[in-house]
Amino acid sequence: MDEFETEALADPELSDPVLVEGLPGVGHVGKLAAEHLLEELDGEPVRKVYSQHFPPQVSIDEGRSELANAEFHAVQTDQGQDLLVLTGDHQAQDNRGHYRMTDQFLDVAEEFGVERVFALGGVPTGELIEEYDVLGAATSTAFVDELEDVGVEFREDEPAGGIVGVSGLLLGLGERRDLDAACLMGETSGYLVDPKSAQAVLTVLQDLVGFDVDFGSLEERAEEMEEVVRKIQEMEQGTPTPTDEDLRYIG
Amino acid sequence: MDEFETEALADPELSDPVLVEGLPGVGHVGKLAAEHLLEELDGEPVRKVYSQHFPPQVSIDEGRSELANAEFHAVQTDQGQDLLVLTGDHQAQDNRGHYRMTDQFLDVAEEFGVERVFALGGVPTGELIEEYDVLGAATSTAFVDELEDVGVEFREDEPAGGIVGVSGLLLGLGERRDLDAACLMGETSGYLVDPKSAQAVLTVLQDLVGFDVDFGSLEERAEEMEEVVRKIQEMEQGTPTPTDEDLRYIG
Amino acid sequence: MDEFETEALADPELSDPVLVEGLPGVGHVGKLAAEHLLEELDGEPVRKVYSQHFPPQVSIDEGRSELANAEFHAVQTDQGQDLLVLTGDHQAQDNRGHYRMTDQFLDVAEEFGVERVFALGGVPTGELIEEYDVLGAATSTAFVDELEDVGVEFREDEPAGGIVGVSGLLLGLGERRDLDAACLMGETSGYLVDPKSAQAVLTVLQDLVGFDVDFGSLEERAEEMEEVVRKIQEMEQGTPTPTDEDLRYIG
Amino acid sequence: MDEFETEALADPELSDPVLVEGLPGVGHVGKLAAEHLLEELDGEPVRKVYSQHFPPQVSIDEGRSELANAEFHAVQTDQGQDLLVLTGDHQAQDNRGHYRMTDQFLDVAEEFGVERVFALGGVPTGELIEEYDVLGAATSTAFVDELEDVGVEFREDEPAGGIVGVSGLLLGLGERRDLDAACLMGETSGYLVDPKSAQAVLTVLQDLVGFDVDFGSLEERAEEMEEVVRKIQEMEQGTPTPTDEDLRYIG
Repeated sequence: MDEFETEALADPELSDPVLVEGLPGVGHVGKLAAEHLLEELDGEPVRKVYSQHFPPQVSIDEGRSELANAEFHAVQTDQGQDLLVLTGDHQAQDNRGHYRMTDQFLDVAEEFGVERVFALGGVPTGELIEEYDVLGAATSTAFVDELEDVGVEFREDEPAGGIVGVSGLLLGLGERRDLDAACLMGETSGYLVDPKSAQAVLTVLQDLVGFDVDFGSLEERAEEMEEVVRKIQEMEQGTPTPTDEDLRYIG
Repeated sequence: MDEFETEALADPELSDPVLVEGLPGVGHVGKLAAEHLLEELDGEPVRKVYSQHFPPQVSIDEGRSELANAEFHAVQTDQGQDLLVLTGDHQAQDNRGHYRMTDQFLDVAEEFGVERVFALGGVPTGELIEEYDVLGAATSTAFVDELEDVGVEFREDEPAGGIVGVSGLLLGLGERRDLDAACLMGETSGYLVDPKSAQAVLTVLQDLVGFDVDFGSLEERAEEMEEVVRKIQEMEQGTPTPTDEDLRYIG
Repeated sequence: MDEFETEALADPELSDPVLVEGLPGVGHVGKLAAEHLLEELDGEPVRKVYSQHFPPQVSIDEGRSELANAEFHAVQTDQGQDLLVLTGDHQAQDNRGHYRMTDQFLDVAEEFGVERVFALGGVPTGELIEEYDVLGAATSTAFVDELEDVGVEFREDEPAGGIVGVSGLLLGLGERRDLDAACLMGETSGYLVDPKSAQAVLTVLQDLVGFDVDFGSLEERAEEMEEVVRKIQEMEQGTPTPTDEDLRYIG
Repeated sequence: MDEFETEALADPELSDPVLVEGLPGVGHVGKLAAEHLLEELDGEPVRKVYSQHFPPQVSIDEGRSELANAEFHAVQTDQGQDLLVLTGDHQAQDNRGHYRMTDQFLDVAEEFGVERVFALGGVPTGELIEEYDVLGAATSTAFVDELEDVGVEFREDEPAGGIVGVSGLLLGLGERRDLDAACLMGETSGYLVDPKSAQAVLTVLQDLVGFDVDFGSLEERAEEMEEVVRKIQEMEQGTPTPTDEDLRYIG
């Protein structure tokens, strides 16, 4: 196997597509968001990228092995721009691998005519979130203004330390290719998989790209997570907090 | 020395050979199994692979040094398929090395006409095993079914985290070469060298490939290990448990 | 992106320029010194170097992303030699990267006609400094003598362990290109950003190169740091030490 | 700078030379032994090897910088075989670097006509040594026998884990070039620089190669180390042990 091997699965014509990246990261926000898009909007797998920069690993599903990879799905939205969604289970394992793999991803995106890139992710706050703000960063001042118009927050010195990994490099290397690229980072505690943060990020993305997605399944998953959080809090405090359902009986 | 150097020691004609890999890993199950095959079935060394991805090391045997390597042995079984057995003392030391070395191993296997690959290993359970199940994974559903027919277990989400290293990549990269590849993983505590787990794996392999091997020496080694376990348990509990031999005197 | 990509921003003619390097390091002495030169002497950006050896990261400034890089600024001094100042936020992330990046930096320097190199940095003493000595090292005995004449200290076995990273390699690789190179290391506690140490280093550099720089802003910053140190000491001791300002009221 | 750069300093004709390697390692035994040879037998520097696999570092001597390197010295013995002595302050920093650097060293050795290689080192015992045995390993049974004849010890399973780094690879890669290579490992506690262990190794080497070296300075250094050890023991025990010198006054 070469350093990279890209398998072509389909070659649909996409209308003015944007790249949406959701690889694993803080609170799995980006990955949850990307996978929710694929479920709700019927993504079609178009490319698989294998690489020696991924961990030397196969995953197993019902006994069948699958070599570590990242996958591009095409989503035809019928409204506004089409989507090219990049997701997977792995990040590159070394610094140079991050650079080289992001270049590989941008090659695929340009093949499909992508001119705009959205890297989705989470930004850890260290505490449970009440209101899910979305922080942003972009390759140009004009793009920053555009994001601000749909409610994306920009705060001085945030995220501290910049943006690391493929999300950061999609901006850094995207700019060097004259692509418009932005990172949308949902606030999240950083402790748990966070479907609410993913929903906040997707709400912003909808406005920017012009598609419509149902959040029902993401909200259900968020409720399950909240149930988990409540149980953990009970265990810590020793006394159960009555739930809405409990109160119904009491009332 | 180049990144890889493969030394040809012999070139026997093999009849429809399968590759059997048993490099060091959990409970040394794969290595024990592969070495038992070589002892019982008179393996002939055919290739040695040296590599800059191995540790920079020589082993010493009676004062003589030997550079880190992996070795292929040919086993002519006279029944069913012949075997090409890969074993050694080292794994690659870096991620890319795992990918590149597995490709190197598959090149050698294809040179001998291999179309089917068995990666042998152990899967850690964290507790002492009563009944030695063998878990499996394979590159196709048809191969999964075939393994199931000879008693290999398939469990949801096991092994969690997939299969890492050369065993995993023999499946991942094997599939990309259109080879049939399977991993047979004997359950093992993970704490000790486990000859019983190796025997369980070989019993399955016998059925699949069609050879016959005597387990006498492996059973002796298993008894020695059990003696070790019993002594450790005694030390922990402070009171000796009577052995069968002790009981003979008492009775 | 290639292993290195150097972007040309301007190509001024420089008169007998010296390279002044101030990348991040102990007490940020080198970086503070280099940035002070750029502020006071109106540096003009001339080259940006991007590299796969930098961390895979963008920094964010008012929402705009910038790919990890190092930057060269030209400073025309009107007295003595011009300066080519190298600064940035990152070091190479791996051993070979240090070698290859330093070579890249020296290529840029030679393009501008540089024949002399000053690497600025700090040397940690582990205690608060009263008098800020500057330690030195250079590629030739003649250059060592020249440094000694302007007050640079040379002590046996200091710095212990030699000089690591780009500062060290500017000497090591510079010498192999027949460049004169020196390292000027301001003593610093190693615990805090140290503007006084940066001033000590720049004072020596002024004498050696023949330019004049105002230290007002650096002194202000030093006073701010001293205020921080005094507050930390108060917290540790529980009792406040009267400041000059306090004493004015008392007296 | 390239991955390796070898500087030629002199090209003396050597009579049937052997390579003697003494790079840093356990108890600095190899390095002490090699440097003692150079001091006593008037070594002439013949090659310097610089490499990106060394740490990115200069050492400083009286203010002058020197890039990390390894050095070959020629020693003309007038009796028996001449010596090509390899020493330095650094080892390669990565696995592949060890392989590639050892090949580089063997290239230099073959340029001078070397057919026999001695890697000098220490083997840690974890306790203070009374009698300094020298353990061995070699590339052929004939060479093992030859070493045994001059008192080198060979013990089963020692050194456990084989021999790692350049010393091990001089055997492993040397054998692949049809060179005779041996490792001579002086027993040493592993806690301290050990001149006595170096002397034991050199005594064996003298017999094998046929030169004569005075051990006076090495013995002095051993006495200094013993003084250090005695002082450490006193501090640990609280009561001073009378030294020979003390006893002279008492007696």
